[in-house]
Amino acid sequence: MRQILIIGAGKSTSVLIKYLLDQCEKQDLFLKIGDIEPDYTSEIIAGHSRCEAIFLDIFNEENLEQNVKIADIVISMLPARLHIEVAKACLKFRKNMVTASYISPQMKALDGEVKKHNLIFMNEIGVDPGIDHMSAMQVIARIRDQGGKMLLFESFTGGLIAPENDTNLWNYKFTWNPRNVVVAGQGGVAEFIQEGKYKFIPYHRLFRRTEFLAIEGYGKFEAYANRNSLDYRSIYGLEDILTLYRGTIRRVGFSRAWNMFVQLGMTDDSFTMVNSENMSYRDFVNSFLPYSTTDSVELKMRHNLKIDQDDIMWEKLKDLDLFNDKKKIGIKNATPAQALQKILMEKWTLQPEDKDMIVMYHKFGYELNGERKQIDATMVHIGKNQQETAMAKTVGLPVAIAALKILNKEITTPGVQLPIKKEVYKPILEELEKHDIIFKEKHTDYLGYNPLGEVGG
Amino acid sequence: MRQILIIGAGKSTSVLIKYLLDQCEKQDLFLKIGDIEPDYTSEIIAGHSRCEAIFLDIFNEENLEQNVKIADIVISMLPARLHIEVAKACLKFRKNMVTASYISPQMKALDGEVKKHNLIFMNEIGVDPGIDHMSAMQVIARIRDQGGKMLLFESFTGGLIAPENDTNLWNYKFTWNPRNVVVAGQGGVAEFIQEGKYKFIPYHRLFRRTEFLAIEGYGKFEAYANRNSLDYRSIYGLEDILTLYRGTIRRVGFSRAWNMFVQLGMTDDSFTMVNSENMSYRDFVNSFLPYSTTDSVELKMRHNLKIDQDDIMWEKLKDLDLFNDKKKIGIKNATPAQALQKILMEKWTLQPEDKDMIVMYHKFGYELNGERKQIDATMVHIGKNQQETAMAKTVGLPVAIAALKILNKEITTPGVQLPIKKEVYKPILEELEKHDIIFKEKHTDYLGYNPLGEVGG
Repeated sequence: MRQILIIGAGKSTSVLIKYLLDQCEKQDLFLKIGDIEPDYTSEIIAGHSRCEAIFLDIFNEENLEQNVKIADIVISMLPARLHIEVAKACLKFRKNMVTASYISPQMKALDGEVKKHNLIFMNEIGVDPGIDHMSAMQVIARIRDQGGKMLLFESFTGGLIAPENDTNLWNYKFTWNPRNVVVAGQGGVAEFIQEGKYKFIPYHRLFRRTEFLAIEGYGKFEAYANRNSLDYRSIYGLEDILTLYRGTIRRVGFSRAWNMFVQLGMTDDSFTMVNSENMSYRDFVNSFLPYSTTDSVELKMRHNLKIDQDDIMWEKLKDLDLFNDKKKIGIKNATPAQALQKILMEKWTLQPEDKDMIVMYHKFGYELNGERKQIDATMVHIGKNQQETAMAKTVGLPVAIAALKILNKEITTPGVQLPIKKEVYKPILEELEKHDIIFKEKHTDYLGYNPLGEVGG
Repeated sequence: MRQILIIGAGKSTSVLIKYLLDQCEKQDLFLKIGDIEPDYTSEIIAGHSRCEAIFLDIFNEENLEQNVKIADIVISMLPARLHIEVAKACLKFRKNMVTASYISPQMKALDGEVKKHNLIFMNEIGVDPGIDHMSAMQVIARIRDQGGKMLLFESFTGGLIAPENDTNLWNYKFTWNPRNVVVAGQGGVAEFIQEGKYKFIPYHRLFRRTEFLAIEGYGKFEAYANRNSLDYRSIYGLEDILTLYRGTIRRVGFSRAWNMFVQLGMTDDSFTMVNSENMSYRDFVNSFLPYSTTDSVELKMRHNLKIDQDDIMWEKLKDLDLFNDKKKIGIKNATPAQALQKILMEKWTLQPEDKDMIVMYHKFGYELNGERKQIDATMVHIGKNQQETAMAKTVGLPVAIAALKILNKEITTPGVQLPIKKEVYKPILEELEKHDIIFKEKHTDYLGYNPLGEVGG
């Protein structure tokens, strides 16, 4: 039996484990699921003879090494910053490794050693990063193989609530880590390039400079810019491209409403508030508004954000019970971001019957035989239930498939890498299609920001 | 002869040196002015028998120590981060020391040693910090001595252009370090307390939440909040005060106009722009505006900032030649803040005949014998010329006076300190009055944010 060691058995691993368990007999596998809090009675693995939950503490060197040593491949589903500990053990015992996280500088630094020992450390092979890389590179490679020249690449991903459960005014629920949503866009300017012009959007304008998208059968979406678009020039080999833009998808109207929190300063995660524990929701809001003996918090808020009385923005705020003077933040030394998260989780947490939805949208503009063309590739995947969420599936399946293909020596190029090579993305995308993760393409004339090649800026 | 060593002979030291030179004969002093680029032919010291310019490199230990060793007191006018090197030498050779900068954590850490050797390391004794501390503490101590209880302390300072030279639409010129003006307010939320309520203003709202001030004979001013107001509770012993607010003074209208740059992201100092060297002013502006093939940079700017055609804001922008497509930024790897500074320096640099002006405004609210009262103390000082600027005078005089009084053992309490003790501020403020740095007081009923003690928030 070939042993697969999965480290970190969080929410996102159910589909990953299930996929591998389904292959256990045929492929002669044994799964060890290591966690610092192992769930020995988990429904998924219960009674399965080729699977075992074990205690694994990566900071206990002996415990970690003894498990890595006997594995044939290691999958790390730990928080991103912890992969490096696993990677060092994998390097020591010459084991291949798979993660769904961005390659950290420390991970990258192992590349020479990893190659020397002919190992594969595959990263960024979840959904975003992951499926975005693979689906984009497949189209880019096809355009290049035809002799086309890339002009534009725009890529958008969002984790949203499924249309049938889209029941609040914000058209949003937390389908993944709420904290990431609250602090999204912070930590630096959004920088990208449009038709050869560099553009910068500071955080406090990010949610007012959105792009619109539409996907047949699913309606309209909007996207705000990610910080790191320009990094993708070197990653995807698009050094001379005129337009490169990456963004995060939300339903139309979300960003305009979210911007109210940004404007007030309620998403700030850089300082803690005195006596946050006993602060009411209303106190919290009021601390971002001018002092007054005559005006209510409501009026100050309306005035400060210029919200007319019939503006839906106001209903969105009321929907969150933001002006309640009884409900407490209840967190000691909370940052505004933590307090806001608390308020939002009360309203935006998935209900037992709620399903999530992953939406991905790529635009490829290119020139071929003197003609300017465009391909729009879209993927929408809706979760089945609270276990088999779209997020768990789109993250877990590529990880599982990659691990198996590395184990079976179908993926062989060594190094610390992400899935941008054909040998990797082609078979994985094919397998994903069988699991209903399918991109649809629309071919049109070039529709970029400057289709006629005029003077623009 | 008693030797005073002044280290760092920048723009701000002319008044300081002149004051000390005037006392040389009477007080039997000799001045050594050490700098890494000594000006041996300086007009101020030329032919003066009790003064010498010397080469001094604080990073050359021997050079530094040999000069500190023979001095009777050391004044450091170096950039704030460099004082610590001088302080270590002063500690080693048991010399007293004076600086006009905020006490750094490293400086503070020397307090025990400094006290042990009965030394005085006096800091924050320029204008802001400096005269603000002294003039505030004098009034606060007087109110306390009368048995009053402090309710409110607000303190505002600004370095501005003198009214007779206030010739541009912004009512502003750079009278001090331009960089500090461009990045002012960055690096964290402005946090203060009003009538017992904590208030937070994020950077991107700072210039739209100003307070108004008026000073008889000088007209109206506005002030935006400083970041560190709450620190002054412990510094001034105002732990239970209901209102504490510190701010920076500008002429009315400056902040609203400056906010345009903040909104666009043009004051950002956290990233560098590709090809900034060859960027025109117009390109620079356009990089913060959406791409368009049809709309001009001007229209995009008006639309983005919602500037009506008859709005004076527009004239202020045009006044800076911001849309010029010939003038280049001309700085490699410039941050937006550096590029903006370049543009502003072209218009806001002092002309040879221009005079500067220091404005300080304190409000003290207090309760005495059951009555709520207020004192407004204001100081305006206008520079004489480009050498004897108001800034050089208000920074240099307190430093010089303090150094002499320490040398003459009139100030004796040891420790790393700032001028909040009566033995320090009383004689210094008296001496400053002789040099026309005078606070005027206005006594009224309490006018704070909640004069009637209503329910407010």
